[in-house]
Amino acid sequence: MTAQDQWFDSAITHLADPQNQRVWSIIVSLFGDLAQGPDDRISGAALTRIIQPMHVKPEAIRVALHRLRKDGWVDSARSGRSSVHHLTEFGRMQSAAVTPRIYDRDPKVPQDWHLLISEGGGALDDLLLTENYISIGRSAALGSGAVPPNCDDLVLFDVTARNVPGWLKSRLCPPDLIEACSSLSDAVKTVRDTRPAELDLTAAQVATLRTLIVHRWRRVVLRNPDLPPMFFPDGWRGGDCRTSVFALLDTLPKPELSALNAPA
Amino acid sequence: MTAQDQWFDSAITHLADPQNQRVWSIIVSLFGDLAQGPDDRISGAALTRIIQPMHVKPEAIRVALHRLRKDGWVDSARSGRSSVHHLTEFGRMQSAAVTPRIYDRDPKVPQDWHLLISEGGGALDDLLLTENYISIGRSAALGSGAVPPNCDDLVLFDVTARNVPGWLKSRLCPPDLIEACSSLSDAVKTVRDTRPAELDLTAAQVATLRTLIVHRWRRVVLRNPDLPPMFFPDGWRGGDCRTSVFALLDTLPKPELSALNAPA
Repeated sequence: MTAQDQWFDSAITHLADPQNQRVWSIIVSLFGDLAQGPDDRISGAALTRIIQPMHVKPEAIRVALHRLRKDGWVDSARSGRSSVHHLTEFGRMQSAAVTPRIYDRDPKVPQDWHLLISEGGGALDDLLLTENYISIGRSAALGSGAVPPNCDDLVLFDVTARNVPGWLKSRLCPPDLIEACSSLSDAVKTVRDTRPAELDLTAAQVATLRTLIVHRWRRVVLRNPDLPPMFFPDGWRGGDCRTSVFALLDTLPKPELSALNAPA
Repeated sequence: MTAQDQWFDSAITHLADPQNQRVWSIIVSLFGDLAQGPDDRISGAALTRIIQPMHVKPEAIRVALHRLRKDGWVDSARSGRSSVHHLTEFGRMQSAAVTPRIYDRDPKVPQDWHLLISEGGGALDDLLLTENYISIGRSAALGSGAVPPNCDDLVLFDVTARNVPGWLKSRLCPPDLIEACSSLSDAVKTVRDTRPAELDLTAAQVATLRTLIVHRWRRVVLRNPDLPPMFFPDGWRGGDCRTSVFALLDTLPKPELSALNAPA
């Protein structure tokens, strides 16, 4: 086994998400990273080459693809003796909605925050589900930027935070999220630090590592709104994690789909 | 009956509070207006001269004084064959606490508002009861100026209101308060407009009219925090009412206690 093979295997171990290795979710991350365009296609063989090294059996990939087709995320076609997969329009929309936040290297924390308060009941539920709002207390929602339409029945304040108590910090950033962020930060640093000077990875190998990184980072960054620093608990290493994630991704440039789909 | 007597009787009818003529509450207003100092005393006879023209029987005055003594507001002493009444220290403190708001001719609306939000439960109840906070929604309280101590467990925002929906306006200013304010505004204007050019009221008569005005105004102004204009519903005539109340009070200068207590 070469030093490169050893490093690649150990990188997979480090980068595998200890919390979530659901194959359908990994495939979503993979398409989002490598094949989000309307004409982008990935062959079944390429998918297997990228995902199988994560210790996922081909049968599990087939099951996951079946589920993604059923849920309207992915469509598949026959091409000669092999199959070819692509995101549906729905899948691309879902993917595009989160791409800016996942790949933002230097997110600007909004300066203009507002608070919407309802009289009671479920008036804020729609807002909290469909817009980028943060629930605070029982009948208030914190957001930034433009106020959505149809909020006439809510109290609206422009706000500047002056105190964020522990209960809100740990609701926004619970211990498992702090831990997920720290462990990802450590993992990408280890993988980068142990990288051999000479490295000649295949396109599929690059895709395997990118998919693992993006998948795990996605599950940290999307749980966490871009709030001012005072909203975060001590021990939160979000900025450090982001820097390390992109430092490693930059050493693994996105491979061309043609290289990925080329028979091995 | 002279023109003056006719006007005096009609003023009493106009100024009597249609909602609350509870005698103990009228006596509280009377002491607050005319005898709030620690050495101020009002004789039983003077009280009767001031209050009886409001169509209150002497027996009702005695009952009210009994209640105020029992509740610790008023103390009474014998002085020869008559009794003399004064506010207790508790009564003076209660009275002094609301005097600035009642007699403020030009209240400044605070510019610096903040919102406190609790996790849930009754964390805000103490604040809403003992401090000058306004409940908004189920777990938020709006206040101005310095934040009380022991609020570390609450989310604290500096806020500027941008939308106040109808439900909050009518909670802050329910229809009966709008009506009470409008009818007081109309009453004091009518009384002032119909005032005879030549007027020679006794000290007790001046006190009767002042007490009625202050009593009714107190019950409007204290229900209503000094919020920015956008918090008030259409039809709210608070500013108009205040102007009219002081315009009439200014025609009825506060009589000396010695004049009130002098045997008729």
